[in-house]
Amino acid sequence: MSRLERVVVVGADAAGMSAAHQAIRSARAHGRELEVVAFEKTQHTSYSACGLPYWIAGEVPEYEELVARSPEEHRRMGIDLHTGTEVTAIDPLARTVAYRTGERVAETIRFDQLIIATGAKADVPPWARLPDGRIRGGVGVVKDITDGQAWIERLTRTTQKNAGRPSGDPVVVVGGGYIGLEMAEAAMSRGHDVVLVTRSRVMSSLDPGMSERVENAIAAAGVAVLRHATVVAASSGDDGGITGVTLSTGDRIACAAVVVATGVRPALDFLADAGLPTGRSGGLQPDETGAVAPGIWAAGDCCETRHRVTGNWVFLPLGTHANKQGKTVGVNIGGGSARFAGVLGTAITRFVSAGAHVEIARTGLALAEAQAAGLDPVALATDGRTASGYMPEATLLAVNVIADRSTRRLLGAQIVGGERSAKRIDTIAASLWGGLSVDDLAGMDLAYAPPFATVWEAVQLAARRLADRL
Amino acid sequence: MSRLERVVVVGADAAGMSAAHQAIRSARAHGRELEVVAFEKTQHTSYSACGLPYWIAGEVPEYEELVARSPEEHRRMGIDLHTGTEVTAIDPLARTVAYRTGERVAETIRFDQLIIATGAKADVPPWARLPDGRIRGGVGVVKDITDGQAWIERLTRTTQKNAGRPSGDPVVVVGGGYIGLEMAEAAMSRGHDVVLVTRSRVMSSLDPGMSERVENAIAAAGVAVLRHATVVAASSGDDGGITGVTLSTGDRIACAAVVVATGVRPALDFLADAGLPTGRSGGLQPDETGAVAPGIWAAGDCCETRHRVTGNWVFLPLGTHANKQGKTVGVNIGGGSARFAGVLGTAITRFVSAGAHVEIARTGLALAEAQAAGLDPVALATDGRTASGYMPEATLLAVNVIADRSTRRLLGAQIVGGERSAKRIDTIAASLWGGLSVDDLAGMDLAYAPPFATVWEAVQLAARRLADRL
Repeated sequence: MSRLERVVVVGADAAGMSAAHQAIRSARAHGRELEVVAFEKTQHTSYSACGLPYWIAGEVPEYEELVARSPEEHRRMGIDLHTGTEVTAIDPLARTVAYRTGERVAETIRFDQLIIATGAKADVPPWARLPDGRIRGGVGVVKDITDGQAWIERLTRTTQKNAGRPSGDPVVVVGGGYIGLEMAEAAMSRGHDVVLVTRSRVMSSLDPGMSERVENAIAAAGVAVLRHATVVAASSGDDGGITGVTLSTGDRIACAAVVVATGVRPALDFLADAGLPTGRSGGLQPDETGAVAPGIWAAGDCCETRHRVTGNWVFLPLGTHANKQGKTVGVNIGGGSARFAGVLGTAITRFVSAGAHVEIARTGLALAEAQAAGLDPVALATDGRTASGYMPEATLLAVNVIADRSTRRLLGAQIVGGERSAKRIDTIAASLWGGLSVDDLAGMDLAYAPPFATVWEAVQLAARRLADRL
Repeated sequence: MSRLERVVVVGADAAGMSAAHQAIRSARAHGRELEVVAFEKTQHTSYSACGLPYWIAGEVPEYEELVARSPEEHRRMGIDLHTGTEVTAIDPLARTVAYRTGERVAETIRFDQLIIATGAKADVPPWARLPDGRIRGGVGVVKDITDGQAWIERLTRTTQKNAGRPSGDPVVVVGGGYIGLEMAEAAMSRGHDVVLVTRSRVMSSLDPGMSERVENAIAAAGVAVLRHATVVAASSGDDGGITGVTLSTGDRIACAAVVVATGVRPALDFLADAGLPTGRSGGLQPDETGAVAPGIWAAGDCCETRHRVTGNWVFLPLGTHANKQGKTVGVNIGGGSARFAGVLGTAITRFVSAGAHVEIARTGLALAEAQAAGLDPVALATDGRTASGYMPEATLLAVNVIADRSTRRLLGAQIVGGERSAKRIDTIAASLWGGLSVDDLAGMDLAYAPPFATVWEAVQLAARRLADRL
């Protein structure tokens, strides 16, 4: 009997495991069996990294709930999974992967098909480390389950230390993006004061006016927002635990802990000598099938993707893309035919604390992005409501729509508002996906009833006002 | 000085007044002034008929909140508005309108442009009337503010009569559509038991399986649902107030009041001799500009509209269309150029009572509608969640997607689920508007974060599963 085709998967989270299981399913549908070997550096597989802040906040009681499939489940489903095992190199010509489990000596394995799905890793700036290179006590990123556990312990310990005092030293959150905002919420949920330090603005992927709405909302909820500031130095106590940070503005902030949420980059160090082309972010650039070289595939946060509006490569590491890309790769390895059709940069989050509820979403291009792409965009923000004004559940929202002046094509949109506001971004994302115009959006037949929308749905009101300006 | 061009508007609710104000604005933008004369049969203008059930339920304290613009406001904005004035006939050749205010003798007025926006009127079945032709006491439709006020009095009086008793005779709701469901909610909010009698199924515009989910949810909340039943007779007490109804099934139900919610039809009796062509529903069939004849325009619930999926004329009286059609007519009368691009049959409602929260939405064609249109549709309902399963706010929803077997084009969808589920229908409506396929919907970049969606967004999961079946 000839040996089975062997698929080696590097990284056993959303992208890798979606690809692996889909490959097995698709191959079976084509009458073939595959041997699938997967290597995962950590002890955890297929968990929701996006759920970490909610576990840290205490909204999700146990991390097991974040795990879609445990290592045991993957193994039961026929994957030869090696956790605690790091891939150190690949050789595309010899078609081998070198890997090492714990302290054991490195081994190699041959592959017929290779799936690179190592995800992204968090940036750790120099000031976050002690002189000996270790990360300071009380400082952490929010990338995996180990980080989450550390944050729960840190925030609980600090709360206990400050017990009885309404406000000990604050938690400093460095980074005003999605993770920064979600961790600000989590730290406040745990009873901490929060100082949020951001290089530019809060949610800087939004247009400035929308960003300002977010800043105002979180400031009203008690977050101290320091814009246009970076951390340049930090100090630790005798136990190595952080005691304060110094900012580029000269301010010094005493703090109990520091969340580092300044971004991530593709975790591809092991590819250094493999000769696979990467983009500006360092991410791989798979084609629509997921291939980066013959028989070598990539999916998830270690990849760049094509932006559908500009056609440019972008680095937008998100679980939704990882799952779709993984499935695409799996179908193609299994003998089917699938394409990953690119991204729009759609994203959503919220900040809920102390009676404040602000939702934030975006899709497509922001005004500056559209200008940078050589387009001639016009943007307009319009205030609206999530329900008829006379309904008790109505909340306010602002919808910022960006369209091309001459073609009237939609380019992007952003929403900042109260409860039940931000998910409306999907209506605009679908419109962008279809290449529709601002007039299409203004005229389309969206759902109206008083508890759900105004009679001119908020996103349409925004589109109509912009259409009138073009 | 030559006289101003005169625009006569028949009906001063959403469509007529949108048209009137837009005509004035557009004409001014083109350097012209218009004389606008409007006739309204009732004393009320520009109110949200869709909001009536929520006012009746007590969620909206005062009906004034439902009124977008009062007669005085319209007059201040330059419209010569005659309330309590009924148009009795139009003469398209003589270009005159005959009208009568109260008991006064009829008069005629000449028009240059005529806007017909008389809306729809509720069906009142024969059993709802006393032998002398008057509507029985305790029986009412839900069409205008007078109806709403009568319902508040009726439901309050009945509650008082039954004071102390947890359950007096129930309120019977005849009709299982949007108004029926909303009035069931309102009556329960006012402390009444509700029996809902429906000719076929509850929400029969949904596919049967989805309809059943709604029935189960409202039955669990305490509504007694009687399917495949009509009222064939009714009885009244000495005061003329209804005491019971007899059903086609032979059942007799003692009741305190009866909501008639069996549908509406275009309110166009005055057009009988005008020779304007109407459709099967009796509604006018304006072209994309809103014109039904030279210088004669129509908008709102007295019109049929083109369904974008089939191209067929349909009668879907809804406030959103009325506003868009009114604006279209106004722009065109004012000298601009606008088109009403048709409808998808998008609709949404909810039933909230006794701890139950069910949301219901649809867009495009149901399976049977697609079959009737000669298409070869496939439908599949998929269960999902509104948020990641580990988030406390996650609720269940079912998404039923209908697509064409050979072209894979999306044809329609329906959603039944818990809080924050149904507005997702807009994502599918936008996809339908763009003529997208089920694969487009499955692949598009929609917003994900744990409080807002699952990593495979529920509508995409449904699209993907259907795509795999085609």
